[in-house]
Amino acid sequence: MDPTIDFDRYDRIRPIRWTGEALELLDQRRLPFHVEYLRCDTHEAVADAIHALVVRGAPAIGIAAAWGVVLAARKVQADDGSEAIAALEPAFARLNAARPTAVNLAWALARMRGALVDADAGWRERLTLAAQAIETEDLAANRAMGVAGAGLLSPGSGVLTHCNTGSLATAGFGTALGVIRAGVAAGVIDEVFAGETRPWNQGARLTVWELQQDGVDATLIADAAAAHLMKSGKVHWVIVGADRICANGDTANKIGTLQLAIAARHHGVKFMVVAPSSTVDMATASGAAIRIEERDAAELLTFRGERTVSEGVRAWNPVFDVTPHDLIDAIVTERGVVHAPDTDRMREMFG
Amino acid sequence: MDPTIDFDRYDRIRPIRWTGEALELLDQRRLPFHVEYLRCDTHEAVADAIHALVVRGAPAIGIAAAWGVVLAARKVQADDGSEAIAALEPAFARLNAARPTAVNLAWALARMRGALVDADAGWRERLTLAAQAIETEDLAANRAMGVAGAGLLSPGSGVLTHCNTGSLATAGFGTALGVIRAGVAAGVIDEVFAGETRPWNQGARLTVWELQQDGVDATLIADAAAAHLMKSGKVHWVIVGADRICANGDTANKIGTLQLAIAARHHGVKFMVVAPSSTVDMATASGAAIRIEERDAAELLTFRGERTVSEGVRAWNPVFDVTPHDLIDAIVTERGVVHAPDTDRMREMFG
Repeated sequence: MDPTIDFDRYDRIRPIRWTGEALELLDQRRLPFHVEYLRCDTHEAVADAIHALVVRGAPAIGIAAAWGVVLAARKVQADDGSEAIAALEPAFARLNAARPTAVNLAWALARMRGALVDADAGWRERLTLAAQAIETEDLAANRAMGVAGAGLLSPGSGVLTHCNTGSLATAGFGTALGVIRAGVAAGVIDEVFAGETRPWNQGARLTVWELQQDGVDATLIADAAAAHLMKSGKVHWVIVGADRICANGDTANKIGTLQLAIAARHHGVKFMVVAPSSTVDMATASGAAIRIEERDAAELLTFRGERTVSEGVRAWNPVFDVTPHDLIDAIVTERGVVHAPDTDRMREMFG
Repeated sequence: MDPTIDFDRYDRIRPIRWTGEALELLDQRRLPFHVEYLRCDTHEAVADAIHALVVRGAPAIGIAAAWGVVLAARKVQADDGSEAIAALEPAFARLNAARPTAVNLAWALARMRGALVDADAGWRERLTLAAQAIETEDLAANRAMGVAGAGLLSPGSGVLTHCNTGSLATAGFGTALGVIRAGVAAGVIDEVFAGETRPWNQGARLTVWELQQDGVDATLIADAAAAHLMKSGKVHWVIVGADRICANGDTANKIGTLQLAIAARHHGVKFMVVAPSSTVDMATASGAAIRIEERDAAELLTFRGERTVSEGVRAWNPVFDVTPHDLIDAIVTERGVVHAPDTDRMREMFG
């Protein structure tokens, strides 16, 4: 078989569309039953959309914010880059505050600001090109990671993923879901399983839907069914994304990832983390230093705004957990693959 | 502190009430927002209620079916037990078919039939007493297991449970939840966590509600947050029920139990199974021989009858999984505790 990947065939969804006039965001709150793009004409509208989770996924948020800066630039008078930086400061602040915990958001805004340094009267064009570069590079990185990750899989593989790390969370193709797309396209993946990913149900609402759009069949399971699935022998790799990867390879990701990694090791199933190198944080030695964000208990106590749990009951809703590096078989970035990650091997790749 | 348990204080809920005239079943489909008893005047109504999950939990189903036989007896003419057995055959069959996979249902009906063997004209009274015995013995067994299980806990313990194994699933007090009730009452449990238990949400709908009725605070978590909770050090024991316990201690229980056992072992958290000895199946050598029931994918694809996942997506919905005995620290039944269960230790207790 020819393992060359037909990207056009397996990469049709775009959560973010720049029309040249406005930014259109696929409204992820309404998926999978309503496929609607929300038009944003101002940076305020973009910030509101990020805050309201119209767009989600760390890379996608960064890209949307970059285009938000381009929109803000239209309402600003400046003769060069340094004047523009000063004039855009409120817009940078507004966008940065939309979701202060997303690392890629701050990273993208810093890069947009950097594009203005030493810019002349053509600073607007530089901003537009910078936003486009952020988006284009993300897509290219995802495709590179997809090919690299799929190269680790043996023909006939079953895979399990968690949360949504796909086109919807990125410029396109996805990180962990990009590896799965590439593996399906290359013919090495026979079966794809996706966990619901309570309490937001990103797996149930987004992942299986976006794979369906590209003609990839996936089977949804309850998060708690993953170990039983592994025991059945149907899954050979668990493939997940990352919100932060520490210097020793410890990886923060969506709550439930740790449980999957432990069950995978127990059953001899391999565990792969896929994320762009911007997710690697060599300044943080290990996962012990990561503060785990906890979100509103209402996510567990209500569904579509309706109470589902008895009044007065409390819930604990941590958003992330940390998987220790020794449970990870491979970290895949656009720079390459780190096998059995530890501090030495991470340093070799990420200096 | 006096560890004597005030059962009246911690055991207020009864899912099944025999009025002397009719059977009243707490409608568990409507909990936690509607506390309503459904009155059953006939064995057909009881069978329908079991089938429709008005009453659920293996011990509770058996008890309800036993009272169903008492109701059926009213419409039957018979001069002695053997005539009654023949006349009641259709009722036995109807009740037994209500949920054919529940072991306790068949067990309770066999016991009711046994009460009629050699019975004279007083066979109706024997039936009533047999139903009452099944219910009374279940409650007594649960209280005994509660005390025995709580005796394994150190003061200051945090515990995590799964599914609903409480008063609602039994004659009262519960199995795993009975140990938790007893532990709270004895002052050795500081904090109780309950997993949602997707896709039916027995933890979210039933367990936290029933503990609340007895004044016990519990914290709800997503099933996938359990490993992170264990890593945080807040939980010392995972305490679960069982649907079948094999001769070597392998235990079938609600989907997600296996994942909890693996994560518990990884984090040095203890794992306790609590079930009446009628759950022990010494004729099945190990969990490999247990067929795992799979239920309708709709449970994962809809909520309150409404579709929540894209049309055309499939789901895999196994109801149980099997936890290998070597991940279990203690099996608690009304006969006593089997520590580190294996075939030899199980045989010592259950012959």
